[in-house]
Amino acid sequence: MAERYVDQASLENFDHRYRVNFINALSGFKSANLIGTKSEAGINNVALFSSAVHLGASPSLMGFVFRPDSVPRDTLTNIRSSGVFTVNHVNHNIFKQAHLTSARYQADESEFEACGLEPEFIHDFFAPAVAQSQIKMGFELVEELPIKANGTIFIVAQMLWVMLPETIIADDGYVDIEAADTIAVSGLDSYHDSQRLDRLAYAKPFTAPSSIKV
Amino acid sequence: MAERYVDQASLENFDHRYRVNFINALSGFKSANLIGTKSEAGINNVALFSSAVHLGASPSLMGFVFRPDSVPRDTLTNIRSSGVFTVNHVNHNIFKQAHLTSARYQADESEFEACGLEPEFIHDFFAPAVAQSQIKMGFELVEELPIKANGTIFIVAQMLWVMLPETIIADDGYVDIEAADTIAVSGLDSYHDSQRLDRLAYAKPFTAPSSIKV
Repeated sequence: MAERYVDQASLENFDHRYRVNFINALSGFKSANLIGTKSEAGINNVALFSSAVHLGASPSLMGFVFRPDSVPRDTLTNIRSSGVFTVNHVNHNIFKQAHLTSARYQADESEFEACGLEPEFIHDFFAPAVAQSQIKMGFELVEELPIKANGTIFIVAQMLWVMLPETIIADDGYVDIEAADTIAVSGLDSYHDSQRLDRLAYAKPFTAPSSIKV
Repeated sequence: MAERYVDQASLENFDHRYRVNFINALSGFKSANLIGTKSEAGINNVALFSSAVHLGASPSLMGFVFRPDSVPRDTLTNIRSSGVFTVNHVNHNIFKQAHLTSARYQADESEFEACGLEPEFIHDFFAPAVAQSQIKMGFELVEELPIKANGTIFIVAQMLWVMLPETIIADDGYVDIEAADTIAVSGLDSYHDSQRLDRLAYAKPFTAPSSIKV
């Protein structure tokens, strides 16, 4: 297969839209999560994010990347004002609705209604979850880390609760997100179902890894 | 389907190993990348990371999470001393070798040899790439952001070059990582192939999204 070597000068010379598509795909498969928030005026907001990253289990922390706040960003504004948000796995039944949340709506328009998603309030948590999602979590904002290199913001948040189907939790705590129809994203706009190759036991030096039953 | 609500007290009371498995799966699908580095003593190191996150296309930036450096971490040590590293997509032919890099080797043992991976030096770049990977990239360290909440470190790095198969680059710049057999990870140890559901055009308010041909 012919290989192509792209150096830094070539990267910088790519047309803007071409470069955005190209670079976005290169980090590998990404998570697909709908973040639900509520504004001070009581408007429910939901937006698709592919930047969730696991930070640690104890305390239970995740990170999320937010773009520069030079333009209005309802999600970040609402997280700052309320301190809380939900994270909801996108499954293959709602990936088109999830994609549509990326369109530009006004601050007083709820993406829930506009995109065919249903808000669900779980145990009186302030921020709305997404009813059609099978794995729903509540978070509180812990830290904001500004990234100097491009003005993005890395948000650190702690998990407060999780709602998920009982049957997808394995005996050892692993959550079978494939069984919940959770999808993956590549690039800006490509959505993928998954097929498990294997679960592999804890690695030991110079020893072929064995499978774990899910 | 029976739903389970797990509150914060329950999360904290989970057995340590159970909680690690549980929380690790909840961020959604993760990228699978082998990070290649070289020590000052000239030892080639390679390690599996599932925390790569896209930060921006201009400049081309990715972020990576590193665990607390209270124990020796060859990858981070080598990145700090040399300033550079490679990121190599894990494909379904090498996921077992990639998993095996997580075992505890000594600093003077190269995971390449121990795990059946082959180092490749591309255009005299200091850090080794992984020959069996189809998508290989060179990076330089730009920023280190300490995360106070759990002592992990978020590394920001700039892409210097990419080597990839010519045929997987779409006309609009999108890189078809599924065609390169790139896999996804869930939790600590579950590896997944993908199947594209669709690529969707830029979202417009109140408009059903249309497909993009790959």
